[in-house]
Parts: sequence; structure tokens; C-alpha cells
Amino acid sequence: MVLTLTTDFGTSDWYVGALKGTLVRLAPSVALVDLSHDIAPGDVAAASLVLAGAAPTFPLGTVHLAVVDPGVGTARRMLAVAASGHLFVAPDNGLLTPFLEHASVYSVERPDLYLDAPGQTFHGRDRFAPIAAALLGGVPIEHLGPRIDDATRLVAPPPPVRDDRRGVVTGNVVHVDRYGNAVTDIPASWVRAEPIRATVGGAQVARLATHYAELEPGVPALIVGSLGTVEIALRGQSAAAALAIRRGDAITIELGALAR
Amino acid sequence: MVLTLTTDFGTSDWYVGALKGTLVRLAPSVALVDLSHDIAPGDVAAASLVLAGAAPTFPLGTVHLAVVDPGVGTARRMLAVAASGHLFVAPDNGLLTPFLEHASVYSVERPDLYLDAPGQTFHGRDRFAPIAAALLGGVPIEHLGPRIDDATRLVAPPPPVRDDRRGVVTGNVVHVDRYGNAVTDIPASWVRAEPIRATVGGAQVARLATHYAELEPGVPALIVGSLGTVEIALRGQSAAAALAIRRGDAITIELGALAR
Amino acid sequence: MVLTLTTDFGTSDWYVGALKGTLVRLAPSVALVDLSHDIAPGDVAAASLVLAGAAPTFPLGTVHLAVVDPGVGTARRMLAVAASGHLFVAPDNGLLTPFLEHASVYSVERPDLYLDAPGQTFHGRDRFAPIAAALLGGVPIEHLGPRIDDATRLVAPPPPVRDDRRGVVTGNVVHVDRYGNAVTDIPASWVRAEPIRATVGGAQVARLATHYAELEPGVPALIVGSLGTVEIALRGQSAAAALAIRRGDAITIELGALAR
Repeated sequence: MVLTLTTDFGTSDWYVGALKGTLVRLAPSVALVDLSHDIAPGDVAAASLVLAGAAPTFPLGTVHLAVVDPGVGTARRMLAVAASGHLFVAPDNGLLTPFLEHASVYSVERPDLYLDAPGQTFHGRDRFAPIAAALLGGVPIEHLGPRIDDATRLVAPPPPVRDDRRGVVTGNVVHVDRYGNAVTDIPASWVRAEPIRATVGGAQVARLATHYAELEPGVPALIVGSLGTVEIALRGQSAAAALAIRRGDAITIELGALAR
Repeated sequence: MVLTLTTDFGTSDWYVGALKGTLVRLAPSVALVDLSHDIAPGDVAAASLVLAGAAPTFPLGTVHLAVVDPGVGTARRMLAVAASGHLFVAPDNGLLTPFLEHASVYSVERPDLYLDAPGQTFHGRDRFAPIAAALLGGVPIEHLGPRIDDATRLVAPPPPVRDDRRGVVTGNVVHVDRYGNAVTDIPASWVRAEPIRATVGGAQVARLATHYAELEPGVPALIVGSLGTVEIALRGQSAAAALAIRRGDAITIELGALAR
Repeated sequence: MVLTLTTDFGTSDWYVGALKGTLVRLAPSVALVDLSHDIAPGDVAAASLVLAGAAPTFPLGTVHLAVVDPGVGTARRMLAVAASGHLFVAPDNGLLTPFLEHASVYSVERPDLYLDAPGQTFHGRDRFAPIAAALLGGVPIEHLGPRIDDATRLVAPPPPVRDDRRGVVTGNVVHVDRYGNAVTDIPASWVRAEPIRATVGGAQVARLATHYAELEPGVPALIVGSLGTVEIALRGQSAAAALAIRRGDAITIELGALAR
């Protein structure tokens, strides 16, 4: 049984170890797979995107446990979600937004599973790990609590828009990755050929490339990223740093004649 | 067989990989679980605390290998410890202090197990990994060397003190975590209700909370942390940074009437 | 089946997770072992050294997948290499240089294995993972593509030289590790006893030690590192930072009478 872990715990404290130890103790045959423990503290949107990019690559039946939980100890619910053959466990704070469509969503209410523990600050160890272990042990998800239809969703930016008449596409920067690529939510299929003129974060981008090595040094380009959306890249350096692009920035792309 | 790993090796060099490879080679059925490789270089106390917070969550029989070893190559001993149903392997430098009480402690003297290797700088790979692999392979711990009763212990700060007559509790900051929470060694059961007035690192804390989301922005509070001790927290920011609190700082808490 | 992972993906994005998920999906019985995901972006030489230091410690039959791939999407080849009983999969950019001697090297040409995916920026997930999974699944390496003898090799610095007549050894700093030790390519057997006088990065080193704890504070020394080569160390601090030593720096060591 594969279980993936996504947290904002960092890797210098005992939090990751205590989460793993509890899982191994309660579900001895689990195969733990770290996705990331370096989500910025409390950055629910970043965790959501990591899970959106990674979870679908796992085999059916995988359990994905994600704990970025600034509301730990409050009345926020805990979710168990079945979607596309995968199972997800996370706080009800929007983290699972990418998977809620066409999903079976349950509010976990099983105090009999929770561990006795001091304090209300580490539900990862004390509640989420036992919930995930129950799923790994074969407890049917519908036994974990009532089905709900009002799970919390992240407030999304306005979705990307394609105005074919005017030849203009607009969207948003949703992530800046380790290399400084600025990942957008604009489908790559909307931006097929030069000429293009993208405006984002005060910078102008006029090139469209298919891979990084093709870029001219110092000349930013749009490129098709690994999620199938457009990203802004610079060869061998951070496009986001060089062009002052940040997550949440709007991007406008003029296509065809407009871009000339 | 589960083996946990705690080191100060970082994750950019070949050290973690060589440690893991040696373990997998010598104990092919081992299930490796990373606790942390991001202990600050040589910070034995931090490794000790990570292990104290994480090891007890693992199933009985788990082997915990911890290598933070600034004395590598000296005559410092290597320990194998059986405590509370767990096994520990580490240098004799205080790292295993939390587990030495009521433990069976052995000084490992098995040069036949050690690997031939250049230099005296990487006993993690050349000695500790084979020792841990021997335990995983079923070698009884008492076959590893003589039992000892003088293992090195970390010089502890004065233990926390509760003066019920005066209504004053004193203790120490033992850790600052990723979120900037300042974890103390004061049992949470000693500090049950407001009014309180804590003095630590020059700052005053007058609130007692049960979870982070309850905190008012900018107002620090005491909270019951995941080890069952009091910690100082600030909502959405680092209490340690904002209040200039550091590991080793003393903390005094006045309770009841005194705190008004 | 053990598979090791070495990448420059970092641990904050979905890249590591998507690589692992694809591997687990295509090779369900794989045991994944992270070597490093913190190689500096595009630093092929660093990845090569991590693999050189770690891979030989693994059992025969291990598959080592390394993806540091600034040329992703170009016509650069993808390699599968059998060497010393291990299997390696990586882009043909020099990353596997340490293993090419006496190896069987194949240029992978199996588009039937590659995954359909948007874009040309994530061959780790879309091509390298399926190639590694094929090897894990028992596909003979020679079925992956034609054998070649012109794999790309890193441009090496001039090899270390020992001039016994003059008593002078010269070499190069090949790595600075987490502790700030400056690792060279000079075999430790060439530098057996004081007096010595090493010149590197403008600094002079006159001591030869066998372990770190033996060093006098503030006095740098040569020491035999874990690869069997000489490194420059300072007790409790970074020798590289204190002495302004960088990867690529030349080092000259005068031995015996010369060094007095």
C-alpha cells in the first residue's frame, strides 16, 4: 500500500519523523513516499498544486496524506476524499480543491481513531495519520464520517480566458518553481505559434519555445510546462527573479497580428 | 525491518546516499525511513530532540540510527542501546541522552564488522551502517560489545521548577521549530489557565491558547506543543524571530495573582 | 528492486513527486531511495560526484536514475549504462562520466516506452522514469537501443600530478561539502606525513590530520576524506568559506623538505 506525504513541516524538526512513525506503527505494510515537506509554512495553495501535479502519476488505490494545517485545533473539518481511484486525507481548508470535482467527499468524525496526545497542535500525528492508516488497513471511506458537498475550496483567481475575436489570452501565474520558471494556468494549446506578446509583472515576452536549451541567454520565452500550461522561462537563470514575476500576477498574451 | 535515519549530512553531498546504500547492501530487507538529514552540522542536542520526538512513535523493534558525530575518528565510543523496545545506534556523544534511563547500553567493539575504507571521517558509512545492519540481521545487541553504565549525557540545563508557594514556574527554551515556535521543557500541566505572565528573551507573554488559529495577530501566547510542553507562538509568523528568543533562553512564568 | 534517485528538482515543487509516482505506477515493486534532490540547478558535475560517491555502496543490480538535464527537449541522447554490476539511466550530458570506463553504454531509443505528455520540459517523468521502470521490470538493457562508444564526458580538470623528484603534488578542488570541507582529487596515499605545505585559493595549509576533532581551532589542515582523497578542513567551521576556496580551484602541496 502506497501512501504519499505532503506537508509544510520542514525537515529539521521531529514532525516528519513522528508522522512517519505513527503511520508505520499503525499500518506496518505501508510504503511511504515523500512528495514534499518543504511547502512554505501554511501555504495551502502551494500544497494543493504539488498534489495536483504529483498525485495523478501514482497507481490507483494510492492514499495521499497532506498536512498543511494552519487551522489545526479549530473546528475545521478533516476530509477523506475518493477521486479518480485515489484516496486523499487532508484538513478542510482548500488543500484538496483540485480533486473535489466528481469526488466522494467525507467529513471524518471518528474520535475513536484519534490518538490521545498532549495539546491540539499536531493533528498530523494524532488524527490524520490514524485516519490514513485506517484507509490503508481497509476501512471503507464511507465509514469515516458523513458524506458532504460543501468542502472548502481555495478562492481561485479568475480562470484563464481566451478571446479569439480579439486574439488575446489572459491568465495567472500560479507557481514559481525551483528554477525560477513562472508557471501559469493558461493551456498551452491556446498559444501555438509566434508572433506572441506576453505581458506579465511589468515584463514583455515575445518568444515561444519548446525547451529550455533553445532559449537565447537573457531573452525570456513562453514554453509548454509539465502541467500542459504556459510558463515563462529564462535560460540558466530565474525568470521570476529577473522579471520580478510573482505568484498571483496576471498575464496577458496577445496572439498573431496583435502581437506584431 | 524498519530503520530510521537522523543525520547532519545535509542533502547535497553523497553522504546520505552512501549511508543508505551500505545499509541496503548489508540488510537487503530494510525499510529505510528518513527522520532528518538537516540537523545543523554537529548539533548533537538538536538530533537528540528530533529522535526524542519521533522515535517513540515507531513500532517496537525499530532500529534508529543517528549520526551526528563531530568526534568521528577519535576514541569516542559507539553505542548500541536497547530502550523501551527500540534499538538505537549512535556515537557516544550525548545524542542518545533521552533514551539512556532504564536502558541497556553497549559499547560497540566489533572491528570485524567495520568496513575497510579510506580515512577516518565517515564512520556513518564504514562503522555505524554495518553495526545497524547487524542488528537488523538479528545479531543480539549483547554480542556487539560490553555493557556499560557511563554513556555520555548531554549537559542538561537546570530542569524546570515549579514553586507552587510563590506561583512561579521556570524552565528553558529547548528548541525553535520551523514555524518559529519556541518549545520549552515546562510541562503543559503546570500552566493551566490565565492569568499568566511569561518572561523569556526579554519579551513578555500574557496569553495562554490551545491552538495557533486562536491567537490574535501580533500577540504572543503560550500554547501546549506536541511534546506536551509549553511553547511560545505567534500567529502566522516566527515568535522566536519577533521576540528574539533563542534555544537555551530561560523562561519564567508567573501564575495566578502574581501574573496580574 | 532498488532504484536510487538523484535530481536537481528541489523539494518544493511537484517534480520529485511526479517522478516517484510514475516509477511506482510502472514498477510497483520498486524500492525508491532518495540520494539527493538538492543538486544545484543544472549542476551536472555535482550530480556526477554524488553518484560516484554513493552508487558503489549499493548492492549489485541496483538501478540508479539521475536527472539533471538542462538540455531536456533537445536532441541530447538518453543513456542506459551497465557498469560494475549496476545500471544507470541519465541524460547524455556527462553526468555518468565516472561510470563510463569499462561500461556497456546504450543510447535509449524506445519511443514506445515514453509517456504521452504535454511539453518537452519534463523527460524525468515522461521518458527517464519509463526507461528505468523497463529495466526494473526485466527488460534487457540491450533492448533499449544501440550500443554506443561516444557518450558525453565531462571536461575534466587536468588530473592530479605527483612529481616525486621535486616533492610536489598538484590537483583540484572538486567539491565543497555541507560542512565546508574542500574535497580534492589528490589521492590521500600521496600525502602521508608532515611536513606539508598546501597552497589553495590563496591560503596556506601546513597541518595533516586524520580526523576533524584533532584540528586546532582556526588552523586549517589536510585530512583523508571519505572518497580516499585529501580534503581541506577547519574545526567547527567551513574551511571553504574561511579560506575562500571554491570548486575548481587548483591546489599544490609541497612535501617533505620542500614544505619546511
